[in-house]
Amino acid sequence: MSRFWSPAVHALEPYVPGEQPKGQSFIKLNTNENPYGPSPKALAAMAGAGGDALRLYPDPVAADLRRVIGGAFGLSADHVFAGNGSDEVLGHAFAAFFRDKGPVLFADVTYSFYPVWCDLHGIPYRRVATDADFNIHIADYTGECGGVILANPNAPTGIALPLIEVERLLRQHPDVVVLVDEAYVDFGADSAASLIAKYDNLLVVQTLSKSRSLAGLRVGFALGQPHLIEGLVRIKDSFNSYPLGRPALAGAAAALEDRAWFDETRARVMADRDAMSAGLRELGFKVLPSQTNFIFASHPGRDAADLLAELRARGILVRHFRSEKIRNWLRISVGTAEECQALVTAMGEILAA
Amino acid sequence: MSRFWSPAVHALEPYVPGEQPKGQSFIKLNTNENPYGPSPKALAAMAGAGGDALRLYPDPVAADLRRVIGGAFGLSADHVFAGNGSDEVLGHAFAAFFRDKGPVLFADVTYSFYPVWCDLHGIPYRRVATDADFNIHIADYTGECGGVILANPNAPTGIALPLIEVERLLRQHPDVVVLVDEAYVDFGADSAASLIAKYDNLLVVQTLSKSRSLAGLRVGFALGQPHLIEGLVRIKDSFNSYPLGRPALAGAAAALEDRAWFDETRARVMADRDAMSAGLRELGFKVLPSQTNFIFASHPGRDAADLLAELRARGILVRHFRSEKIRNWLRISVGTAEECQALVTAMGEILAA
Repeated sequence: MSRFWSPAVHALEPYVPGEQPKGQSFIKLNTNENPYGPSPKALAAMAGAGGDALRLYPDPVAADLRRVIGGAFGLSADHVFAGNGSDEVLGHAFAAFFRDKGPVLFADVTYSFYPVWCDLHGIPYRRVATDADFNIHIADYTGECGGVILANPNAPTGIALPLIEVERLLRQHPDVVVLVDEAYVDFGADSAASLIAKYDNLLVVQTLSKSRSLAGLRVGFALGQPHLIEGLVRIKDSFNSYPLGRPALAGAAAALEDRAWFDETRARVMADRDAMSAGLRELGFKVLPSQTNFIFASHPGRDAADLLAELRARGILVRHFRSEKIRNWLRISVGTAEECQALVTAMGEILAA
Repeated sequence: MSRFWSPAVHALEPYVPGEQPKGQSFIKLNTNENPYGPSPKALAAMAGAGGDALRLYPDPVAADLRRVIGGAFGLSADHVFAGNGSDEVLGHAFAAFFRDKGPVLFADVTYSFYPVWCDLHGIPYRRVATDADFNIHIADYTGECGGVILANPNAPTGIALPLIEVERLLRQHPDVVVLVDEAYVDFGADSAASLIAKYDNLLVVQTLSKSRSLAGLRVGFALGQPHLIEGLVRIKDSFNSYPLGRPALAGAAAALEDRAWFDETRARVMADRDAMSAGLRELGFKVLPSQTNFIFASHPGRDAADLLAELRARGILVRHFRSEKIRNWLRISVGTAEECQALVTAMGEILAA
């Protein structure tokens, strides 16, 4: 508390990220990081971007990176916005498209940063209930609104909607931006990027933190028609001209160009995810069908917070959310095959104890 | 223009940074970059922070870096906020302390991003006139206001105020935050960081882009009493949990710890600045007394925009601002001794032609 704060600052309830432990060695399955390192080509590119060149400002418009990103989706650079992690990109999108409009719609169970950005910008919102199995029903996203946010696949459930449902949402709300947050799309879902030419209200946001294994570098991007990209640029250039440093620009471009590394590592994550899901189901867990690099699991006979504490005592970190509807569920990131097996083994021991 | 933009987006007039040319080789004296590379220890630290660790999110609270920064000023880490360049830190400070209050005061000739942040957050502002020689008079900063921003040294003039004047400003406005932007302070001015224990309304902002030669890495910080730091943290955690990637955290801390490199390079910059100023004065220029890594110069007989074009034709970039009061002035960054001499020689040729 401080008498110097702006009035709105007092009411903020900031997002709380998962723990980043220091020192002690944990099996870290709590923040959806990739168990495999970044592309060696990305590391080489970053090394090349260091040195004396760091004395110079980076390219404020990230031209090279945006061209590479666009190329990966068959889009020109003017369909691409790049930022300091997809959280920054999403924060700018809320400011650019949702401020001073009607309520924004998003699921009751979804990324918990969405209401925080609404509060930051004074944007009203309405949560739309998922069903008992946490499915999103697009038919429920009706009525006047200032915009819609759909995490697809959704987090922390891991459930993906087919593109036909995303299109239905885009058609239901032709006069507001429909923001599709695809942080986890590369682990088995379909990207709505293919719909951009058809829908002028579609903004797709992705990150290099998950499937490109660059959470420690901070790069995210948005894809959409140029008039939407320009809206984001106007916010960015009114906030921070140079959001991406030279190492980030170089590393991100090289990571996106290394398709072989990307395909190999995500295939391993998907296979290990399915094996971990099967192992937990054998132990009596309910595990939602995941198209992401994490699973969402609940045991009918055990309290999720207790399980989390028992796992932590065994050196394994997972994530638990306190909101009522998901309070008996755990979000477990997909680690290496060995880490996934260790998680299943530990759960077996905890349940047997 | 887009019907999807938030109403306020249409009215934004974003900041325009200096040119970052690609390809052609210029003597680049237009964006106040340091002519010397970063500390070799910073480069080594960044290399060590790359590799597989990049798959993991960085420390969201930047604990190690904040401890190092605080240590450099005799302050504890809870007096330090770190962000993605000082522009991000300033942007957050406007949101945290100036929103929904009275008008913010700043000089009519100063960093041109200040009114942009005001517009972004809907903050009114009042420009206070500098005198005919571009001096800031603290006695003019009176009346009800929501906050004060003082660039010290000021940009693009390069003129520094002594701390006694900064203290006078702090005492004139005890109930609002006085933000002292010290982007250039290490080139000969005194930091107000020494006043933090005494004034609960003081926030000091610095950057590693100039005196630490890390413009390409994007790191800035704020210093103030913990209640002010907490206000910034609340905004940051409502916007982007992880503004600083692992290379930035590691490189910035190592750069701050390499005091010898810092002292040697800034001493060279200050000596070359004074030599370049003397050289231009001999050519008939009026050159303001600079405590920064740039000079602000005007020739009574020549149009500044014409001089800029002639310099560019000779492969030298400098900066010109269109606003009326400074339209016949050029801002010239201090390069290496050779680059400074090349600038003076080129000006001599242009004037003689």
